[in-house]
Amino acid sequence: MSKTLVLASQSEARRQMLQNAGVEVECLPARIDEAAVKAALSAQKAKLRDIADALAEMKARRIAGKHPDRLVLGADQILVCNGEIFDKPTSEPEAKSQLKDLRGRKHELYSAAVIYNHGQPVWRFVSRVEMTMRDFSDDFLETYTSALKDDLFTTVGGYKLESLGSQLFLSVKGDYFSVLGLPLLEVLEFLRGIGICQK
Amino acid sequence: MSKTLVLASQSEARRQMLQNAGVEVECLPARIDEAAVKAALSAQKAKLRDIADALAEMKARRIAGKHPDRLVLGADQILVCNGEIFDKPTSEPEAKSQLKDLRGRKHELYSAAVIYNHGQPVWRFVSRVEMTMRDFSDDFLETYTSALKDDLFTTVGGYKLESLGSQLFLSVKGDYFSVLGLPLLEVLEFLRGIGICQK
Repeated sequence: MSKTLVLASQSEARRQMLQNAGVEVECLPARIDEAAVKAALSAQKAKLRDIADALAEMKARRIAGKHPDRLVLGADQILVCNGEIFDKPTSEPEAKSQLKDLRGRKHELYSAAVIYNHGQPVWRFVSRVEMTMRDFSDDFLETYTSALKDDLFTTVGGYKLESLGSQLFLSVKGDYFSVLGLPLLEVLEFLRGIGICQK
Repeated sequence: MSKTLVLASQSEARRQMLQNAGVEVECLPARIDEAAVKAALSAQKAKLRDIADALAEMKARRIAGKHPDRLVLGADQILVCNGEIFDKPTSEPEAKSQLKDLRGRKHELYSAAVIYNHGQPVWRFVSRVEMTMRDFSDDFLETYTSALKDDLFTTVGGYKLESLGSQLFLSVKGDYFSVLGLPLLEVLEFLRGIGICQK
C-alpha cells in the first residue's frame, strides 16, 4: 500500500494540518453537490452528525471508486445554528448576512472524516464543537469582512479563527483541529494503527 | 492611553496570537527567575492555578513598574503531571526525559494572564486544559526530537501541537489558544471592554 494518503477535499487547511503532522498527502478533490445533499438530508430530518458523515463519505467513495488501490480520506464540516445548516458564503453580502445571523448566538460545527481502503469504508469519526459568537458591532463586521477578503469564502460561517476571527468569539468548546475542519488527532490514531504513521 | 499593548513575555507564540487578532503589541520581556518562584510556591502547597497566576502577575508588575503609563499584559503557563510542575526543557536529553515522563498519561496546562494599567492590576484570568499523551514508541521519540530541534526548548513539555506535536496526543480538552500559552479570547474580551479593540 502506498504511504501517501489521498485527501478527497480541496481544503488547504486540512492538507496543511496533515502535512504538519508529518503525513504525506496528495489532494484529489471530489466534486459533489454539497448544497443539494445537505438540503435533501435536512428535508429527511437526518441527524446533523449523520449529514456531515454522509458528505465526508460521498467524497471518499467518489475518489476511492476511481483509485481503489489507494487510501482515501474524505472530510466535511457543517455549521448549524438554531437547526439551520449554513453553507460556505460565496459573496461578501452573503458572508455578512451569515455573520449577522450567528452574532450573539451559539452554533455547532460537526467535522466528519471517513477513510476508504481498497475501495471500502474502513474508519469514520464525527466531532462536535460548540462556538459562542459575541454581539459585535456593525462597524466591527465591516472591519472584519474588509480584512478577511477572499478568506471569507473558504470556510463555513465565513470565519477564520487563526486570524482576526478570534475577535468574533467568546468561547470555543471542543477540539481546535475540528474547528479547522478535521478531527486530526483521531485520524492520526487510525493512521498509526494501520502503519501509515510511526507508532 | 497608548493603543499599543505591552507584552511582558518573550513568547513568540503569544505575540503572534495577539497580532493575528489585530492587537498592536510591543514586547518587553520581564526577566524573572521562574523556576525559583515555582519551587517556592510549590513548597508552600500553593494551588496550581495560583502559581500560574503569580508568575503572570510578577511579569506584568515588573514591566508596569518601569512603564506605569502603559497597558501591560503578563502571561505564563505551567504544565503539571501527577502533581509535578514541569519547566521548559533546556537540552535535548531533558526534553526526551520530560516527554517520557508524560508519555501515556494525562497532564494539565494552566495558562494565566494578568493585565496592569496605570501601574495597577486591573484584570486576571487562568484557563485549564487537559492533555492526554499517547504511549508512543522510543523510535517515534527520536523522530520527534530530531524534527523539532530548537523548538523543543520554546514550550513547556517540549511539544508543539501545530506541527509534529499533534502526533503525541490522543486528546486535547480545552481552549487551543490556552494550549499555545494565552487565554486569548478572554484577553480580547477585556481589551474590547476598555476600548483597545473594536467592539
